[in-house]
Amino acid sequence: MNTCMNTSVEILAREGKAAAAYMATSSETQKNTALQALIQNIKSHRDAIMKANQQDINLAKAANIHASLLERLSLENRLEGIIHDIEQVIRLPDPIGTSYDVQTLPNGLVLSKCRVPLGVLGVIYESRPNVTIDISALTIKSANVALLRGGSETLHTNQALIEVIQQSLKDAGLPATAIQLLSGRDRTQVSELLQLDKYIDVIIPRGGAALQQFCRKHSTIPVITGGAGVCHLFVDETADFEGSLRVIFNAKTQRPGVCNAVDTILVHAAIAKAFIPRLQQALQEALSEKRVQFCLDHKAWACVGALDCCRLAKAEDWDTEWLSLVLNVKVVENIEEATAHIKTHASGHSDGILTENPCNAAQFIREVDSAAVYVNASTRFTDGGQFGLGGEAAISTQKLHARGPMGLQELTSYKWIIRGNYQIRT
Amino acid sequence: MNTCMNTSVEILAREGKAAAAYMATSSETQKNTALQALIQNIKSHRDAIMKANQQDINLAKAANIHASLLERLSLENRLEGIIHDIEQVIRLPDPIGTSYDVQTLPNGLVLSKCRVPLGVLGVIYESRPNVTIDISALTIKSANVALLRGGSETLHTNQALIEVIQQSLKDAGLPATAIQLLSGRDRTQVSELLQLDKYIDVIIPRGGAALQQFCRKHSTIPVITGGAGVCHLFVDETADFEGSLRVIFNAKTQRPGVCNAVDTILVHAAIAKAFIPRLQQALQEALSEKRVQFCLDHKAWACVGALDCCRLAKAEDWDTEWLSLVLNVKVVENIEEATAHIKTHASGHSDGILTENPCNAAQFIREVDSAAVYVNASTRFTDGGQFGLGGEAAISTQKLHARGPMGLQELTSYKWIIRGNYQIRT
Repeated sequence: MNTCMNTSVEILAREGKAAAAYMATSSETQKNTALQALIQNIKSHRDAIMKANQQDINLAKAANIHASLLERLSLENRLEGIIHDIEQVIRLPDPIGTSYDVQTLPNGLVLSKCRVPLGVLGVIYESRPNVTIDISALTIKSANVALLRGGSETLHTNQALIEVIQQSLKDAGLPATAIQLLSGRDRTQVSELLQLDKYIDVIIPRGGAALQQFCRKHSTIPVITGGAGVCHLFVDETADFEGSLRVIFNAKTQRPGVCNAVDTILVHAAIAKAFIPRLQQALQEALSEKRVQFCLDHKAWACVGALDCCRLAKAEDWDTEWLSLVLNVKVVENIEEATAHIKTHASGHSDGILTENPCNAAQFIREVDSAAVYVNASTRFTDGGQFGLGGEAAISTQKLHARGPMGLQELTSYKWIIRGNYQIRT
Repeated sequence: MNTCMNTSVEILAREGKAAAAYMATSSETQKNTALQALIQNIKSHRDAIMKANQQDINLAKAANIHASLLERLSLENRLEGIIHDIEQVIRLPDPIGTSYDVQTLPNGLVLSKCRVPLGVLGVIYESRPNVTIDISALTIKSANVALLRGGSETLHTNQALIEVIQQSLKDAGLPATAIQLLSGRDRTQVSELLQLDKYIDVIIPRGGAALQQFCRKHSTIPVITGGAGVCHLFVDETADFEGSLRVIFNAKTQRPGVCNAVDTILVHAAIAKAFIPRLQQALQEALSEKRVQFCLDHKAWACVGALDCCRLAKAEDWDTEWLSLVLNVKVVENIEEATAHIKTHASGHSDGILTENPCNAAQFIREVDSAAVYVNASTRFTDGGQFGLGGEAAISTQKLHARGPMGLQELTSYKWIIRGNYQIRT
């Protein structure tokens, strides 16, 4: 590679790094002023934003993209929610500059940790333009800098939003380069971004397994992977049927296209015959238009028979993140078989047990090592907003640095401060 | 790559992953029993260990390796210290299984975080065999699993140590495969290791910049880089001369071959003429045999003149981790020039100010973003043992996950536990 040639991505990254030093020493007032300005500027530029969004929607329609993608792309009726989320972030305490773990060593040295921003984030995401604002708000409040690379089908919307974000930063006396957009339409820019370890501190890919794998393979920068969820609920032999049906219905159908929707139901053999037909009915009857399709193992199949909505599961179904109204159902002999199945097939996102037996709950919690482990609740709660984090930069499914929803604190690091009186090591 | 072919590294990694599930649910008693057994087994196998070490030393001598490497390789008079370190780790509280950040949401869901091990660590390090025991003790206590890849010149010693470690695990009813050694002598094994993201959760390379860069480039597993230290001390115009000379002498000469030894002294112009000649004398006179060599910028040169021990600094000197008795000295006009120099040339390890002015100290702490930032103390303190962590798996110079010395807690992650009463998301 010719290191003398400064490509546009490298220039943006270098500007980002320069902005990071400034952001790191910005005050809480400045950061909140920028976020307040962002709310005002979204309101006053509403027409321009919606016009740009319409452009993207028209192009997407012309390209015949899937209706679910169109739904994600549209900002129609969403700006109020976005503004509400920014207000939440403003109300959260400033995470930067706090001292903790203070201790005085026997030699008199005073040790502490001081919370600092991570620096420059490279965020790669897909078609939802609201993510542009969510991430920007969290990035500003945590005194970080972000290089954003949204889906190419949202380019006009993102460009309109970035203008508004950068204006808001300037309104607060902060560098506009704290939030920048990569506007290329192919993956060349991403490849380039992943090599700029000189300027970028962390890469956050929000998207499918292929994107994650691409980033892990090609990045020389630490990557936080997440977002892919093959999620499970295990209905044990003591579970309350009504409650369990309500939870599964919610986990599968409330928003099937997102990562925390459930993909596989494991049912204890002792209740399979009674529970699975009711599950099938509950998921069929409640939905007026779209109906859930079931992929069943042989034992579950034996409980419902050959219905239109059912087919036998194939091996790969157990590893599939459906993102749609498809649900795997498998009968297990005991909790050990359930946790073993989860260990093999889960993506480490959100997995739960439905039970009235506290020992089973404890065993499940102990043995299942996912970012979020549930007892008697819908997997749909794995979300920064729901967890009180004021939004999320991503949902991490790896163990390093942060796990599950990443809010303000998860966008920080620390430095050790050591104050002495000319002590030496002996 | 032929994924059907199971190489030996892959087999070890898979065994490690299986052991990780077992270690994660092990009790504090089991882990401490293994560490107690380790102490006993080191004592009872002392002769075998020392014999293996002598073999490595003989081979190293025959290969004419550098005296400083020989010194690192030798376990002569070191086993007592190693045993003492294990005792420290036994005394530290068990980090695993503790609940924290407990909160009840308005909908009645009870959220908490539970501390869990990272899983399988791949640790790549060089010639110090004591690291094999240090890392193993921390790995066992934190319920992790480690695949160790030590320097090829310590292979016999490491093989003797691994036998003792694995026996100790078995003595406590824990899987021997929790600590395994890669015994290859070339880098092929490392390359293979870096691709096993299916089994390994984090790669910790302890070594020079070349190893770190290699791992970052080739690993599909998250990497924690660290260990390389280009460290600075800035002597401002108010610093106490005697104290500063004592600290610099310690930071440069107490153990020049390690990462937290100081490499560059920045001196405020107002005191340069008075301080630099004294610095030169202090570092020369106190050492009976080996003398410090100085690389000076033009202004510092003007303060001492053409002595045998001095030369003008070259551009690359400011970015060099000396690991020897060489010291850069540069005169700066003010604190801003000092922090600017550090931002450009430091590796983010340990950097400090020597000052009697609290405002300068505060400014330095605010602006210098290194893992350890010092006021009036020797940089040599950046060490897990010194910081009360009972040893260290590495000293991280990156911002993700952990920064500075990594002890037990830094070898953990967390999972979210959500307990409910069949709540659904609306």
